[in-house]
Amino acid sequence: MTISAGDFVEYAKLMDAVDPLSIFHDRFAHDDSGLIYLDGNSLGRMPRATATIVDDLVERQWAERLVRSWNEGWFDLPLRVGAKIARLIGAQDNEVIIADSTSVNLFKLAAAALRAQPGRTGIITDDLQFPSDLYILQGVSDFMNRSHTIEIIPSADGIHGPVEAIMAALSDDVALLCLSHTAFKSAYTYDLTAVTAAAHRAGALTLWDLSHSAGSTLVDLGAAHADLAVGCTYKYMNGGPGAPAYLYVRRDLQKSLSQPISGWMGHGDLFAFEPDYVPADGMRRFLSGTPSVLSLAAIESGVDLLLEAGMERIRAKSLLQTEYLVALWEQLLEPLGFRLNSPRNPNLRGSHISLGHAEAWRIDQALIHQMNVLPDFRRPDTIRLGIAPVYNRFSDVLYAAHALEQIVRESLFVRYSAVTTGVT
Amino acid sequence: MTISAGDFVEYAKLMDAVDPLSIFHDRFAHDDSGLIYLDGNSLGRMPRATATIVDDLVERQWAERLVRSWNEGWFDLPLRVGAKIARLIGAQDNEVIIADSTSVNLFKLAAAALRAQPGRTGIITDDLQFPSDLYILQGVSDFMNRSHTIEIIPSADGIHGPVEAIMAALSDDVALLCLSHTAFKSAYTYDLTAVTAAAHRAGALTLWDLSHSAGSTLVDLGAAHADLAVGCTYKYMNGGPGAPAYLYVRRDLQKSLSQPISGWMGHGDLFAFEPDYVPADGMRRFLSGTPSVLSLAAIESGVDLLLEAGMERIRAKSLLQTEYLVALWEQLLEPLGFRLNSPRNPNLRGSHISLGHAEAWRIDQALIHQMNVLPDFRRPDTIRLGIAPVYNRFSDVLYAAHALEQIVRESLFVRYSAVTTGVT
Repeated sequence: MTISAGDFVEYAKLMDAVDPLSIFHDRFAHDDSGLIYLDGNSLGRMPRATATIVDDLVERQWAERLVRSWNEGWFDLPLRVGAKIARLIGAQDNEVIIADSTSVNLFKLAAAALRAQPGRTGIITDDLQFPSDLYILQGVSDFMNRSHTIEIIPSADGIHGPVEAIMAALSDDVALLCLSHTAFKSAYTYDLTAVTAAAHRAGALTLWDLSHSAGSTLVDLGAAHADLAVGCTYKYMNGGPGAPAYLYVRRDLQKSLSQPISGWMGHGDLFAFEPDYVPADGMRRFLSGTPSVLSLAAIESGVDLLLEAGMERIRAKSLLQTEYLVALWEQLLEPLGFRLNSPRNPNLRGSHISLGHAEAWRIDQALIHQMNVLPDFRRPDTIRLGIAPVYNRFSDVLYAAHALEQIVRESLFVRYSAVTTGVT
Repeated sequence: MTISAGDFVEYAKLMDAVDPLSIFHDRFAHDDSGLIYLDGNSLGRMPRATATIVDDLVERQWAERLVRSWNEGWFDLPLRVGAKIARLIGAQDNEVIIADSTSVNLFKLAAAALRAQPGRTGIITDDLQFPSDLYILQGVSDFMNRSHTIEIIPSADGIHGPVEAIMAALSDDVALLCLSHTAFKSAYTYDLTAVTAAAHRAGALTLWDLSHSAGSTLVDLGAAHADLAVGCTYKYMNGGPGAPAYLYVRRDLQKSLSQPISGWMGHGDLFAFEPDYVPADGMRRFLSGTPSVLSLAAIESGVDLLLEAGMERIRAKSLLQTEYLVALWEQLLEPLGFRLNSPRNPNLRGSHISLGHAEAWRIDQALIHQMNVLPDFRRPDTIRLGIAPVYNRFSDVLYAAHALEQIVRESLFVRYSAVTTGVT
């Protein structure tokens, strides 16, 4: 069936008009250039309320209240805002805490999980995993005297997760299965419940990286009985550049796990200043040093917006928007050499769509500099179009697809160098 | 010799009048309450310029430039601002980088140092060390299969560093000597050069925590040929609450050290997204995950102010101010039961003065709530008076000493509970 150009336009108009989340668009800052921003999977837009929070933090909490602010709210931030994130990912409010970066938290939880299972030596992951997560697993293993083997299960097509091969690899020697819930490149999304259950049947613990799913995709750690998870707050949670990450440990596991970066913020009695480390009860034991308060406090309003919008509505809109983009790709872009590097099945997909093209780098440059559309680029040949349902409109999706079509049809990309010089 | 009350007042007036650093007082934010802030050793005051930096970061760099800001400056922040900190601590500009928290950085460097010396099993520290540093050393050792012994050399008087006992303990089995340059409680300050040389004679590496010295005390890592150091930026550097910390690795050691939290920010080719970790050349290899940009960018103006003021002038003023406080203590406070819990010799001391008193907790509460003086309290019985020469006046010191005198002389503290309920 051929959909006419007019139909695509009408669809976007209609969907934007009836979108129950449309009110959230203006809760975020937008400049006057008309930028079409499709990189919320890398750095989310700034919630307007965040500027007020940051201003109060700097001008009153720091400048006036000074060190007293620690007792007036700063000490509570990691657990208090963590409890809000818990509601976005199906966790309980004493199962999530904010700390450090995703990489550091992954290190802590991977090390804790491996130490809790001294008789098992296997770590399983896949090659869709964000490379930093692979590096961290290597670092943990090296640090623990190279006592573990890391098996990176390859995806058959570079798009879909190797579910069956993972299931087959889950022997009784496996200590840890560590995967990205949604893959950073293809957006392939694992079935949390099924994969966690398979790991549990083999007696292994699961450690999920939620960075590319939480905030745009339904995550229910509780229903999945997931063991451990980490995630970042600066993508779909709109927490600000490099905002601290969160970590989740299922409540019944918290007591039996100890993490290696045992700094004072994780001590049971912060100001006793005893010479020996005694981990705090509950999630505080997963803290290490003093948190970056400015960046940490700035997270809250982005999380509040997602809670207000509701993850079910966000996911519903994400499905409609990514399906719309796939339809546009099929009609307009596939004939121009674009490949769909994301799963076709929306149930296996997060909220971004990856398109491959032999001229992807130059097209990406034209998209940014001539069309004022900001996606991101992943070497060697992938353009990622991230859709953040809480602020992206159907018309944004349409505009981007038309821009890609025009760039290739009119060869607008040829003026850019084919040499990949950096990130988007 | 008895100094008259009038002499003390005249001295403060005179010294404030001729103070070459007095112009910096108003470069920091002050509220209208007349607060006397003597806790810059815990959280420094806010430089006025910081508010402008943060506002630009949020409203323009994040809100408008969005992900493009990574290429427009954010990626450079850790090394660029690190190079400025290097000038405050006698390091070269390719020897310092900003990352994570002090505890996380200590973990990374301790692990790297131990791994580089597989034949040595000893770690030496002292009991003046900030407890978090002890916890981190324990954590590192535990995860390296408890293969190391940690010897905590006790201070004879709880005030002075056990220099001779440390020298004696430096056997050829010692891998690492880890000390706070300036002790968090007593302000005792080690001779960087002499102690580092002793460690080197034994073939051990040194890891200094500069958190309580850098920014108020002269630190010359280059002259001392120091190996490794970490430090925080939120105390005397005025970088903001929980601002990211820095780490130093002497240039010739950088290549031979690898740290375990091997996240993507430390990879040699950030966006190649190769499956294997290949550490970057130079200091970047000590990065782990994505930095908290808001908190990181906020550091710069505080560092700039110290560079403008000059560390020699800051140290000279610190010496005069702490000596003044000691003289006030001797004349006014010692007769009232206050003990000097810092070294009497100014050359062995950083920029805070610790006073012990049987009623320290209640006196601390009276100081805050009746006198509008903010020090900090350390259990069980110590009041720390931190002097930040870049904004503290001689008259602040005088006021605090008079307030302490009045509180005890007039028993103003008795209305407060003797139960220690928290921090200052």
